[in-house]
Parts: sequence; structure tokens; C-alpha cells
Amino acid sequence: MPTAEPPPDGARRLSAFAQRLLALPPPAPTRSVRVADFRYGDLSGADFPVLAWRRAVNRVCLRRPARLRYDDPRGSESLRDALHGYLWRARGIRCTPERIIIVNGSQQGVDLCARLLLDPGDRFLFENPGYALARHAFAAVGGVEIPVAVDAEGLRTDGLRGEALAAAALAYVTPSHQFPLGGVLSAARRRALLDWAARGGGVVVEDDYDGEYRHGVAPIPPLQTLAPESVIYVGTLSKTLSPTLRLGYLVVPPGLERPFAEAKRLTDRHAPLLEQEAVADLMISGAYDRHVRSVRRRNAERRAALLAALATELGDSALVAGTEAGLHVVLWLPGIPADQEAALVAEGQAAGIGLYPVSPLYAPGGERPACAGLVMGYAALDAETVRRGVAVLAGLVVARNRSSD
Amino acid sequence: MPTAEPPPDGARRLSAFAQRLLALPPPAPTRSVRVADFRYGDLSGADFPVLAWRRAVNRVCLRRPARLRYDDPRGSESLRDALHGYLWRARGIRCTPERIIIVNGSQQGVDLCARLLLDPGDRFLFENPGYALARHAFAAVGGVEIPVAVDAEGLRTDGLRGEALAAAALAYVTPSHQFPLGGVLSAARRRALLDWAARGGGVVVEDDYDGEYRHGVAPIPPLQTLAPESVIYVGTLSKTLSPTLRLGYLVVPPGLERPFAEAKRLTDRHAPLLEQEAVADLMISGAYDRHVRSVRRRNAERRAALLAALATELGDSALVAGTEAGLHVVLWLPGIPADQEAALVAEGQAAGIGLYPVSPLYAPGGERPACAGLVMGYAALDAETVRRGVAVLAGLVVARNRSSD
Repeated sequence: MPTAEPPPDGARRLSAFAQRLLALPPPAPTRSVRVADFRYGDLSGADFPVLAWRRAVNRVCLRRPARLRYDDPRGSESLRDALHGYLWRARGIRCTPERIIIVNGSQQGVDLCARLLLDPGDRFLFENPGYALARHAFAAVGGVEIPVAVDAEGLRTDGLRGEALAAAALAYVTPSHQFPLGGVLSAARRRALLDWAARGGGVVVEDDYDGEYRHGVAPIPPLQTLAPESVIYVGTLSKTLSPTLRLGYLVVPPGLERPFAEAKRLTDRHAPLLEQEAVADLMISGAYDRHVRSVRRRNAERRAALLAALATELGDSALVAGTEAGLHVVLWLPGIPADQEAALVAEGQAAGIGLYPVSPLYAPGGERPACAGLVMGYAALDAETVRRGVAVLAGLVVARNRSSD
Repeated sequence: MPTAEPPPDGARRLSAFAQRLLALPPPAPTRSVRVADFRYGDLSGADFPVLAWRRAVNRVCLRRPARLRYDDPRGSESLRDALHGYLWRARGIRCTPERIIIVNGSQQGVDLCARLLLDPGDRFLFENPGYALARHAFAAVGGVEIPVAVDAEGLRTDGLRGEALAAAALAYVTPSHQFPLGGVLSAARRRALLDWAARGGGVVVEDDYDGEYRHGVAPIPPLQTLAPESVIYVGTLSKTLSPTLRLGYLVVPPGLERPFAEAKRLTDRHAPLLEQEAVADLMISGAYDRHVRSVRRRNAERRAALLAALATELGDSALVAGTEAGLHVVLWLPGIPADQEAALVAEGQAAGIGLYPVSPLYAPGGERPACAGLVMGYAALDAETVRRGVAVLAGLVVARNRSSD
């Protein structure tokens, strides 16, 4: 047996990637709450189309091939064909199935972009505030973040002509519904962003994470439809079927099919086939489109309940932003200083509600919010739970407003 | 719209990772064959436990939680608990469920090892010949391969005391059934390899890709059981259930839980939950162990048919190696020079059989085989197809032997 002791655990040599990864701030812990959990990203288990899913899985199991073998790294041909049709009718995206890469959720899509497009020291533009786990993927490969402020119209492109920005390799954006603040990128800014990409050869990674949800506004076509040669489109099934499925997709520019396919093969061969075939079955039969219409309606009801409860309970002591799309809103609390956010969240936990602060979504050292803010997801809650949760929140906010006076 | 043209596709700036990836040799194309395909890694669709799987999926769907939300990045608690028991009774591995990380197939496990343990320029020891897609994962992150020859007892550890080898960060091995040559690592060499790890702080990545299949020999405990603090154990469900499921698992040394969990989260959050829960259900009910016994019996029959056909049809013109374990053998053809391998494979394709040469599994520039060799998988074939395929192969080999005389 070994004659020498192995190094103590802390001393084990880890890669620079691992060291960057471990230095990133940890995610908010998942805690159980008594009254209402406003965690963004959760869906209601009751919304999952159990019967349709079981039927699809059964059909797929029965027509399994004679040989079980590794598939195309880009994903199942039937799902890519079905998505090709879905993306055209739902989002106006024209592409060949060859340019669609099925990934294990949008997170893997973002990580593949990071690995293929960034070297340590390369700069990337990132919305501030923005989606933390995407920021982490780019930072962990050694990318250097250039935070770009956002306002009600999304990413502020007025600064994109600066030299540092021109040299950036990649920009990550959520133009249809900026995460978390909820702005929709204006037409002029879309042009400015694509101009930036065209000038310096940078790639735009467009995360269309909740493109299915528009509330009383016309759907806006993805950036990808304006400049398919410069934009990597990232889509997901986590907001319509389930985040636990781990299925998403990329539409990559012509010429990037091979790097993405080979990276996917090296990473994990391909996405699980049975689930892909089940989703393809749902898309081909029309069950998926029906399901999307159904969850859109249910989530619109949840959103209405949340907005009504916030107006009734909080009135002028809160500003609600980003309501036009998606499955969350941002609640700004002008009477509570930003540095009291964490205390408010802790009080919420004690009172039985799960609250999620907006501050951790800002780039370290960059611009900070002027007051406390909360990212409030509603897709997993029924209307009554929303109302009870907001009532508890209002009690906490009123008490803090008083103590800040 | 963009005022300048984007760079031509070929000129798009890709990362050093992408460039290394695209320089790797492409995998053998998947072609259809008329008579018999000896592709290693394929399983028979008829072996998949369809009824048990459908029942498990139905049960899991029915007890889905009220909230669908991202799970622990290490994987489902119930599957890690079930694997904890399975690994102990099937492979003698003692570990806590906290040290098990569920991955999307062993390929993702290997890729995570590469990202967390190797920096560009770091050396890794690799069996020669060895498993190409693992070599590619280490090479794509910038690792520098040190090929180590293998013989009938697996990795030759006599050279491990050299300075270059002592400084290597990682060794990738298949000690239970060397891929592709089939040797079982001897006790003395196990000690030598673990000594190497203990001396320099290197990590041993043990790929136990077909540990369930032993033919008439006593099962050999994994290296992991001898030195859990130095060995990352890689297991897979691809050889018992299906390669298309994309489920595998790591057992990591104490202290490496957090880097692997955080890397898994960043990479794709976690493995798909429904499939994990279905496998856990099969393991808890005993259906998985019954299934493993069943496929072990079926594959033993296929192996017997292959060995009998090779003996009958090829006799002394072939040497069969690596028959004690796994789902493939290596067929050496002493009468055919190594440089005629590709021609033999092409003749096989024309004659309706899928053949897979051993040469591409050797490290570029390292030791080469003395004659032509084939990796012959049999897990997807029935006995009759095996016989017909071997008869066609024998015709080709005899013709080539004659022309080489």
C-alpha cells in the first residue's frame, strides 16, 4: 500500500478553473418556508403535463431502436426537426436543424459558449445587474467582466463605442426580458449592439429564457432574427415544462456548428435521448403548443394576483418593474436602503416567506441599486398563497419604512 | 442594421480550448451495415427493461413534488442513497452519498476531472492504447499526454518512477478491464500506481466502465477501495441500461466534493431528475440488480457465441485477447500488417460488417501495434448475427493472409 501520505485535502492541486470557480459567491441556499416562497425559476408541479408526458414516454419506449447507441452530439434528429418548426412559429427564427444544438438546459449552452469563445483574460460584456450563473460560467473560464448598466429599455448601449468594449469577445444579453430588471431592449439599442458585434467580430449570446411569456404586449422577435451570423440564441424548456428536465437548445451561427457539436460530444456525448424524443413527440402531436398556451394562461393569472396584492398591500411604498414579460417581477422598496436588503430577507425567512434580494445580481465593484429590491417569482404559487405571502411582506416593509423615517 | 460585415466564419475567434478540440482526430462515422456491426459500446434494444422502466417513470411522475426546482448539483438524494448501497454490494466501495456526484454519463465525469485537475501544459498519464474520448477530454483542456504502455496485466508501472511521470497531475486507468486490450491490473501494479499517486499528490481517475461483467473470474475490487483518498472512481449506467440514458457517477476523494459539485452546477445545474429518480426506483425495488443479472447472462451467451465462432472460423490466424471481462474482445491478426488495418475495415464495410480498428486508440507518436487488430463489441448482437458476421470477417482475413504470404 502507499508508502507516503497523500497531500492533505486542502493542499490538493486544483486547476486555475477550479480555483476561480471556488472563489465565486455561493448561491442562495434552498430553505423551506411556511407561507410563500417567491423563489424565481421554480414552476408548479401541478402544471406539469403528466398524462401527455407519460403517454409520450411510453410511445418512445415502444419504438426504441434495435441498437442503443450514442447519438448525434447535436441531439436527436426528431427533436431538432420539431424545434426547427417550433422556433419559426413561436419566435420567428429561421434556421436549419443542423444549426440547432440540444443542451442539458440553458446553463450548459452558456458554459459551452464560455469554453469555446473565451480564453483567460478575454473580456465579456455583461448586463449589470444580470443573471449570476451565466456571469459565473464566463468568469470561471477566466473571462474578465465588463459590466454594462441596464435601465428600463435593457442594456445601455451608449457606452459600447469605448475601446475596452470594442475588444470584448462576447456579450451576454437577455433582450426580450432583461434579467432581472425586466426591460425590453429597444430597437435602437438592438441596432447598436449588433453594430458592436459586426465591428469587432464579437459574438452576442442571447438568452431567451422566458420568451414564451408576454403579458398584453406584442411578442418581440429575438435579436437572432436580425443577425443570425452574429448571435448565438439560447432557449430552454425549463420555463414551460420543468427546470428538472435539463433540456435547452442553442441556435448557432453558420460555421459554429462543428465546434459546438464537438464540444458537446467531448462534454457528455449528447443530451439524454429518451427525454428528447418525448419532447419531440409532444411538439409533433401539438401537445406542447397546447401546454404552452395553458401555462401561459395560468401564469398570467398568478401574475395578476401578485400585481393586485402588491398594489393593495404596498401601494406607494413599492415600485414594481419588469411586469410585461416572464415569470417574475422586481419589487423596489424606496423607503428601505439597499444595505438593509439582507435584513429584510432574514425577517422574511423568520416570518415564513422566501425573499430573494436583487443586490447579489450586480457586478462586484460596479453600480449598485439605490434602494432595497426583491426578485419575485410567482410561477410555483397559487393566487391565495401569493396574497398571503404579500401580506406578510407588506407587514415587514411597513415596519422597516417606519424605522427608517 | 449592422454597418460592417461580420468576420468570415473561418476567421471567427475561437478559444484555445476550441482550437485544441478541433485539431483532435474525428470519431469513426456511424454507418449502417447489412450483416453484423461489431461496434463497441452499443447495447441491444431488446435488453432494455421497458416494462420496469415505464412503471418506474410512471411512479416518479405521480409522486412529483409541489414545486419543480433546481436540485442538488450532486444529483438526486434518492439515487445517491441507492448507489451508495449498490456500490457497496456490487463493487465493495464504501463511501458516503455526499461523495457521489451524478453525471451525464462517464464522459462528463472525465471532462469534469480534466477541467478541475489540469491546467494547460500539465502532464497526464494515459494508457497506450487507451480510450480515445477520455484522452481527448484531457488533451482539449491543454493537458500533455504521457503515454504508458499496457500489456496483458494492464498498465506497465515499471516506468512510473521517472521524473516526468512523477510530476504528472493525473493518471487515467481502466484497471478492472483495460480498454481496449482487456488486461486486469495486477496486485503489484496496483500498489505501484497508488505509490505514484501518494508520492507526487497525483490523482488516479479509475474508469470502471464495464465492472458488472466478469466471465468465469472472481470480481476484482476497484482501485478506489485501496486508496479512496487518491482515486476518483467513474461508473456508468451505459453498459447495463443504455448509453442513450446519459447517466454515470463519480465517487470523489474526501475534500473534492465541493469543487465537483460547484463544477457540475456551473456546467449544467444537475443531471435530469426524472431519469435519476427512475433509476433510484429500480435500484430500491431490486429490479436493477435483477436486470444486471439478466443482461450479464445474455452477454455471456453472446460472448460464448463470438469466441466459438472466432475459434471455428479463424483458428490460428487470430489471437483473441481481453476475454475475461466486459463486452468486447480484441482480435489480433498476426498475418496482417498493422498498416493494412484500414483496408480491412473498408473491405468489411463493403462486405456488410462493421469493423473497428485498434490503431486509432494508440497515442500519436508512441508505441504501435505489431499487426492489425480489431476491437469487437458483441452486446448488441444475437448469436446468429455474430456467427454470420464472423464468417464474413474470416473470408476477408484469409484472403489478406494469402496475399501477405
